Amino acid sequence: MEHNMKLDTAKLITIIADDAIENKIIEDLKSVSVKGYTITEARGEGLNSIHNSSWEGKSIRIESLVSESKAEKIIEIMTDKYLDKYAMIVFSSDVKVVRRERFN
Amino acid sequence: MEHNMKLDTAKLITIIADDAIENKIIEDLKSVSVKGYTITEARGEGLNSIHNSSWEGKSIRIESLVSESKAEKIIEIMTDKYLDKYAMIVFSSDVKVVRRERFN
Amino acid sequence: MEHNMKLDTAKLITIIADDAIENKIIEDLKSVSVKGYTITEARGEGLNSIHNSSWEGKSIRIESLVSESKAEKIIEIMTDKYLDKYAMIVFSSDVKVVRRERFN
Repeated sequence: MEHNMKLDTAKLITIIADDAIENKIIEDLKSVSVKGYTITEARGEGLNSIHNSSWEGKSIRIESLVSESKAEKIIEIMTDKYLDKYAMIVFSSDVKVVRRERFN
Repeated sequence: MEHNMKLDTAKLITIIADDAIENKIIEDLKSVSVKGYTITEARGEGLNSIHNSSWEGKSIRIESLVSESKAEKIIEIMTDKYLDKYAMIVFSSDVKVVRRERFN
Repeated sequence: MEHNMKLDTAKLITIIADDAIENKIIEDLKSVSVKGYTITEARGEGLNSIHNSSWEGKSIRIESLVSESKAEKIIEIMTDKYLDKYAMIVFSSDVKVVRRERFN
C-alpha cells in the first residue's frame, strides 16, 4: 500500500439476542471497557439450546471490535449469564483493522 | 480462560438477496435443517452477474451459523436455484462459537 | 460437493459510520469500481479516536465484497479522508464466495 499502512488483527464479537436484554448486554460490554459497539435490529428463528423450545421474533444484533482477551471475557460473561436462560447466539471472528496508533 | 471454555469452529453463511424471495430462502435453509437464522433489512446496489443489469433497492441479509457440510449444501442450493436468476450474494466465513455441549 | 463447486477467497469490507456521510462513502466505493454494496441502518456508541470525544446515535453499516487490492484501496481512502475527522470503524475479513466464472 502506498502509505505503508499497517493493519492489526482484532476480534469481531457478534451477539444476537432477544431485544429485551439489550440494556443488560450493553452494561456487560461496558464492564469490560469496550471502546464501542454497533446495534442493528433483526428478526429470526431459532432453537433455545437448553429448553429445546423454539423462539421467533424481534432480536438485536450487537457487534463490537475488541482485543482477543476482551473477546474471551465477553464470551465468558455471555455464557455464564445468558446462554442457558435465553435464546442467544455469540460468535467471534478474526478481522483486520487500521492501526490505532495512526490516530492517537 | 478461567472456565476452560471450549470454542468450536463453525461457518457463518450470509445471504443478501431481494426481499421478494425471503420465504423461499428460509424454506431452503429449513430443508437442510439449520438450527436458526437471523434477518436484517438492508438496501444496496449491485450488478446482476448474469444479465449484467444493475439492481438497486430493498433487500434482506440472512445469516445462519452452520457446520461445514451444511454450509456447502446451502451454497449449492443457492447457486442452483437463484444465482443465475436473481441478484444475490452468498458468502461464508469461519467463526468461533461456544461449544454446544456445554448447554446440552 | 456434487457439482465440484469452486469457492474463491474475497475480502468483506465493513464500514460503520455516521449516516451523514453515507453518500460520500458510496461515491468513494464507486471510485474504485466496487461491484455492489449493502447498507443496514444501525445505532451505537463509540469513542472518536482522535478527539477522544464520545459519539452516540444513528449510523450506517456498509458492506462490500471486493478483491484484496480493492480492499486495500478502500481502507486507504477511508483512512485518509475520514478516520481522523469522524467516528468511523473500518474492518476487513476473509470470506469465501462462489466463483464468478460459473456465472459469466
